[in-house]
Amino acid sequence: MNSLKQKILTEGKVLSDSVIKVDGFLNHQVDPAFMQSMGEEFSRRFRGCGITKVLTLESSGIAPAVMTGLCLGVPVIFARKRKSLTLHEQLYSAEVYSYTKQESSEISVSKDYIEANDKVLIIDDILANGQAALGMVDIVNQVGATLEGIGIVIEKGFQEGGEVLRKRGIHVETLAAIASLADGQVTFQTKEVLSQ
Amino acid sequence: MNSLKQKILTEGKVLSDSVIKVDGFLNHQVDPAFMQSMGEEFSRRFRGCGITKVLTLESSGIAPAVMTGLCLGVPVIFARKRKSLTLHEQLYSAEVYSYTKQESSEISVSKDYIEANDKVLIIDDILANGQAALGMVDIVNQVGATLEGIGIVIEKGFQEGGEVLRKRGIHVETLAAIASLADGQVTFQTKEVLSQ
Repeated sequence: MNSLKQKILTEGKVLSDSVIKVDGFLNHQVDPAFMQSMGEEFSRRFRGCGITKVLTLESSGIAPAVMTGLCLGVPVIFARKRKSLTLHEQLYSAEVYSYTKQESSEISVSKDYIEANDKVLIIDDILANGQAALGMVDIVNQVGATLEGIGIVIEKGFQEGGEVLRKRGIHVETLAAIASLADGQVTFQTKEVLSQ
Repeated sequence: MNSLKQKILTEGKVLSDSVIKVDGFLNHQVDPAFMQSMGEEFSRRFRGCGITKVLTLESSGIAPAVMTGLCLGVPVIFARKRKSLTLHEQLYSAEVYSYTKQESSEISVSKDYIEANDKVLIIDDILANGQAALGMVDIVNQVGATLEGIGIVIEKGFQEGGEVLRKRGIHVETLAAIASLADGQVTFQTKEVLSQ
């Protein structure tokens, strides 16, 4: 998605060979009209899959997920990072390891809002090592629902998450896949690399 | 907003005299089209104020805030509950006490995305004791920006938050104000009570 790549080039701040700060348009401040255009793009890529639910993880996934749900006309569930104080037995949960924080945490979804006959599209803001996405895949599998695919705003193609998910046969769509952040420069993957 | 009140009556679960669970349409699962209609209503109520930024707090405020920003055509910032690992000195921060968790936490907003000449609309999902809203008001004041008002999806009118904010002269708009949850019944406030 060229408008996104342009935003990454002009507004993203490369902090190291593996970290790019996209607070200005994805993780902290968002441009709702731009979010809507990303929702339309995800919707276009997964239209015809019969999606019945969009699943994301709080917090940065919520804005793109809600816009995708708006375009597809389906509900959006955001997995919580903390269990609710009530009704623990009513939750599907999965462990997610954070390499940044070097700790495991639990994400959970209420059994009330996702069912075995759901066709689920997972949306998330950034795909790096894939831990958050794998946690959500785990929850979809526990439910026995059908995972139709995963839509990612920015994929760090130089980390293993995308490969791990695609090797499992999951349909992963990325709006902008970064090949490298070396020397403070953002280089995007070409379609050829992505489809390997 | 009658459609919201109807949803609270049919889908809300009263757990005690002070707690109502609205996970099905606000805190965990959201209906994006319904969120958009709430964004349109906030936009209608604050149109003409010259809003330049919508400010909310992760996570449950994000969906209504992004839809409000979409209608008003302005960026949305979500205050973070944890400080970023980088650039601490680049943050406005405020303490927020949670009565539910009985602990204080810090919320923060990057200095990059909010300025003294901004006209800010705060959007949040639920107003109870007002601590989260007051934390965001504190940040707007630190910036020296103009607080144009606060839009709340559900106000628990039997808790003090609304009164505290209105006594400060803040323009608070609530889409559904609950007067009581006694005996497992939801009773809404009338306009007369709200305008006192």
